[in-house]
Amino acid sequence: MLKSIHSPADVKKIPAAELSKLTNEIREELIRVVSENGGHLAANLGVVELTVALHRVFDCPRDSIIFDVGHQAYVHKLLTGRGDRFDTLRQYGGLSGFPKISESEYDAFGCGHSSTSVSAAIGIAAAKRLSGDDSYTVAVIGDGAFTGGMAYEALNNCAGNRKLIIILNDNTMSIARNVGAMDNYLNRYRNSAKYFRLKNRVKSVFQKIPLVGKGLVKLTTHIKNGVKHLLVRENFFEHMGLSYYGPLDGNDESLLETVLKEAKEDGQCSVVHIITQKGKGYSFAEARPDLFHGIGRFDPATGEPYSAGGDNFSAAFGDAMCALAEKDEKLCAISAAMPDGTGLSAFAEQFPERFFDVGIAEEHAVTFACGLARQGMKPVFAVYSTFAQRSYDQLIHDAALQNLPMVLALDRAGLVGEDGPTHHGIFDVSFLNQIPGFTVYSPENYKELSVCLEEALSLPSPSAVRYPRGKECLADEKPALEDGTLAVYDYGASPKVVFFTYGRLSARVREAASLLAEKGIPARVVRLIRIKPLAVARLAELASGAELLYFAEEGIRRGGVGEFLVSAMAEAGLCRQARMIIRAISEQFPTHGTTEQLFVDLGLTARQMAEEAEGQVTGDAH
Amino acid sequence: MLKSIHSPADVKKIPAAELSKLTNEIREELIRVVSENGGHLAANLGVVELTVALHRVFDCPRDSIIFDVGHQAYVHKLLTGRGDRFDTLRQYGGLSGFPKISESEYDAFGCGHSSTSVSAAIGIAAAKRLSGDDSYTVAVIGDGAFTGGMAYEALNNCAGNRKLIIILNDNTMSIARNVGAMDNYLNRYRNSAKYFRLKNRVKSVFQKIPLVGKGLVKLTTHIKNGVKHLLVRENFFEHMGLSYYGPLDGNDESLLETVLKEAKEDGQCSVVHIITQKGKGYSFAEARPDLFHGIGRFDPATGEPYSAGGDNFSAAFGDAMCALAEKDEKLCAISAAMPDGTGLSAFAEQFPERFFDVGIAEEHAVTFACGLARQGMKPVFAVYSTFAQRSYDQLIHDAALQNLPMVLALDRAGLVGEDGPTHHGIFDVSFLNQIPGFTVYSPENYKELSVCLEEALSLPSPSAVRYPRGKECLADEKPALEDGTLAVYDYGASPKVVFFTYGRLSARVREAASLLAEKGIPARVVRLIRIKPLAVARLAELASGAELLYFAEEGIRRGGVGEFLVSAMAEAGLCRQARMIIRAISEQFPTHGTTEQLFVDLGLTARQMAEEAEGQVTGDAH
Repeated sequence: MLKSIHSPADVKKIPAAELSKLTNEIREELIRVVSENGGHLAANLGVVELTVALHRVFDCPRDSIIFDVGHQAYVHKLLTGRGDRFDTLRQYGGLSGFPKISESEYDAFGCGHSSTSVSAAIGIAAAKRLSGDDSYTVAVIGDGAFTGGMAYEALNNCAGNRKLIIILNDNTMSIARNVGAMDNYLNRYRNSAKYFRLKNRVKSVFQKIPLVGKGLVKLTTHIKNGVKHLLVRENFFEHMGLSYYGPLDGNDESLLETVLKEAKEDGQCSVVHIITQKGKGYSFAEARPDLFHGIGRFDPATGEPYSAGGDNFSAAFGDAMCALAEKDEKLCAISAAMPDGTGLSAFAEQFPERFFDVGIAEEHAVTFACGLARQGMKPVFAVYSTFAQRSYDQLIHDAALQNLPMVLALDRAGLVGEDGPTHHGIFDVSFLNQIPGFTVYSPENYKELSVCLEEALSLPSPSAVRYPRGKECLADEKPALEDGTLAVYDYGASPKVVFFTYGRLSARVREAASLLAEKGIPARVVRLIRIKPLAVARLAELASGAELLYFAEEGIRRGGVGEFLVSAMAEAGLCRQARMIIRAISEQFPTHGTTEQLFVDLGLTARQMAEEAEGQVTGDAH
Repeated sequence: MLKSIHSPADVKKIPAAELSKLTNEIREELIRVVSENGGHLAANLGVVELTVALHRVFDCPRDSIIFDVGHQAYVHKLLTGRGDRFDTLRQYGGLSGFPKISESEYDAFGCGHSSTSVSAAIGIAAAKRLSGDDSYTVAVIGDGAFTGGMAYEALNNCAGNRKLIIILNDNTMSIARNVGAMDNYLNRYRNSAKYFRLKNRVKSVFQKIPLVGKGLVKLTTHIKNGVKHLLVRENFFEHMGLSYYGPLDGNDESLLETVLKEAKEDGQCSVVHIITQKGKGYSFAEARPDLFHGIGRFDPATGEPYSAGGDNFSAAFGDAMCALAEKDEKLCAISAAMPDGTGLSAFAEQFPERFFDVGIAEEHAVTFACGLARQGMKPVFAVYSTFAQRSYDQLIHDAALQNLPMVLALDRAGLVGEDGPTHHGIFDVSFLNQIPGFTVYSPENYKELSVCLEEALSLPSPSAVRYPRGKECLADEKPALEDGTLAVYDYGASPKVVFFTYGRLSARVREAASLLAEKGIPARVVRLIRIKPLAVARLAELASGAELLYFAEEGIRRGGVGEFLVSAMAEAGLCRQARMIIRAISEQFPTHGTTEQLFVDLGLTARQMAEEAEGQVTGDAH
């Protein structure tokens, strides 16, 4: 049946009685493809009925459906003409793991970061109103994304948007267990006797209604009163001037259709609060929704991941934090709803009083950390590089301007691979470089991460330690270390080419230098461990006599380390005779795919860098 | 009496019956100094009683008081040992116009941007709890700041902080009229019969209580019930797990003292909702609280500003927007609670359907704009440069990644003078430079602003137009214009020095070039109008043969235009023989004071730049 669906029109054609066959097939396809490609499974299993109901009640792409975060949009992709390419999900050149406006006219707004959907939806709805377009706009937002302040800013601006419907998809967890007062608040309704009674009552009311003819019009008021009066009379959403429907069983497709039709007729912007089960319909995912949130390849028959996981930078960070916390009772850890992803689960268990999960609230997290630091604690905010972008102003205004010693632990710094452009951590070096007084470390391996973290915690000023997704790369070579801030690797004497680089990319750069040396071109690699501040004169000295200085970065060129060093050397009149190459990410957003493939696209493989360097030096030596 | 107050201990000594004398003196002093120095008057007049009550009920600096935004902290400064320096308010080397931790031990946390206080307060309270410090932490936040999502993120994390008290200082306006659902919600309580009854009832209850001895303890429960039961039973704050007191007359000092003492004894984190009158006690400010929000020098006897205002970039922007909106019905304008400050009042009046004031919500504003753009509108978000920092992630993730044509109109770009480091717009060039696909304009005068804005609106991609606080500077010289992207000014033939600069600084740079020419050193000024993207080869051509390339910027060096150009020229092998100087803001936050003084500090006056350049060129020509 799924194969016969090429657009939402086909979804509408299916008789109600056969929908469970469709939802079963969708679940099978989700499990099959995610088990092969990796991806977000649990959230998608939870929204199968919702997505089917949305496409039966609304008319996309005229009506706009905007998913928040977007990792729950696989079902939407299956139903909007992308079923035949679903095998390519998250693969290079294939379907994105998130909604993407360039991928399909059915994707009303792209996403990846949390809590943007309602803002985008209000904008789209306002534009429609202004241009006389009477179609609907729907935002689908999870209870996790609801802890983000942006969602509240948007809710504050929703009232009066008659054609705007917000689906609060409440599965009682964000990526990890949900936190905060709003979660406690929602919890009052979940699973309550009231909720179940409501569900049954609403169903029985609706099931009696003839859905055609004049009877409907008359009964509409009844239904509305029926629904509303059963619900909590005055709640948070009604305080915000919105109509509230719910909570409803979000895995009951026919109930959803009925209530969504009601919401369409509502004279106000409405919130439909549904309770869904993350992982629904796949026993392994129902049992471990956290494990199946974002998962690599696994055996669909057993639910067992193929790769056992093992060591990685996040775990090494978590270990280092626990070890440091044993010695220093002032050390605190902060997470924005990702204690597992950032490796802090053990810390949270061992030091519960010093662990703070603040929800998806990166802005708050940084200023909260500054408050802790102001009162003498040593806070470490562990966050993915891409999400730290949310706290840029707080890093300037609260941390740096007041010179408060908080530490940013930036996980997933650099390319992240299959999650793609919304998630690549390619801006942090540039935005931290700008901020006066920030010290920035970019360790290459676990041991160095631990040393950098300890050094960062000893500073009287704010700092960041950034490290990539995945495993360390240990160098075979023994470098010459200089006071912990850099390491020098020589491939032959009197280097003609001197590379400057840092972090994970260093392994590739060393390989490039080695390739050059094999061709008779002596090369040196200067690997920066502390990337800000930099001792420009010393670095120029390490490059003196070279014909080519090659700066390689796994991040945005503008404002990066290469741009600074080249300009600072030029200003100081250093290395004036050398040619300069900055190889970094310039005016583009790298796509999704394997990290290896993305490095090829960026010209950052060892072979590409060696070839580019070779073309710039004199031929006499080889 | 005010002169005798050197610390909060002195405030506590004053008999209750004499407090009105103190509050009168404070108001006189506020009016006197602000009329001479300029500053924020209305908000401070509104919180005189609150600040006095806070310092009588709490023990600063042991107890921490954190002001949100901070422009209402003048009274606090007067009462915490800074009365004798109050004359220096906002002057170079004098008191800051905002709380500042380096200025006084009584300033628990610095600020300037909105909605940070609760986050900081939770951090401070958590640190106290962890270190066994049983003192109190108080956040004072306005209803305007409450529209910022960060405040909500923080409220979501408040529950359980027994020693934390949040004062919601509700004056029914932020800087302009308040907006949004939350404001409507609060409005239910303000001025309601219930509120006045409550006020009287609470007063009569409290006035009967003997404030010493055992009687107090017994009556406490009564009072609590008395207060609470009068109030709306279940409201937004109680949904967040907080105790709610209010609304109370925030200009009634004795009532405030009584309730604050209650809140101290509360077993939960409590919110004290007070209604204050902005401008209270100064008739001109009561009548025009918006005018007296932030004001220049004025005549205290008449309330008339000394400078009539007149033209400025904000007004020119507003005029340009109105003119463009007449021609293009797709043009929309967005403000984050600053329609007046950004010059959009006339637009709001003429095109109310296309004007959106979203509250202090810069994150939401950008994504909302992207939603409008996605549906074919042409949104312009007008915002002060410093506040745009809040939307950094949305600019990357929602605007640039999706290539949606929204326009940022960045007012107050560059140094802002007396408001100081929290408000200088010195980061925007660097952070916009990083973002792939953004086009950035930096016009020098009103006409150019209008042209750039129109060009920005014609682009199929996101863009920004940045302009400074204050008036335009018209060049006497007629430059050679190149396709609207740059202007060239020559001071003699075969220039030895070529300056590159943009925006307001250009006038000073031209003067520097003129000074050099007078000394026999021919110079050229290349003024960039579009600062991103840049035609590097063409710019190098304009500098060919020069001995010195001098890049001058009124912003952060790292990631700025100078750094990019120097590195790009070096990479392209251009201008290799020239010396390079980048004069910009390097690893520091400029202080507050006149803009002129700050330019001196940064070495950016015409004379300083001319002298620095002169020292770098050969002497043969002069």
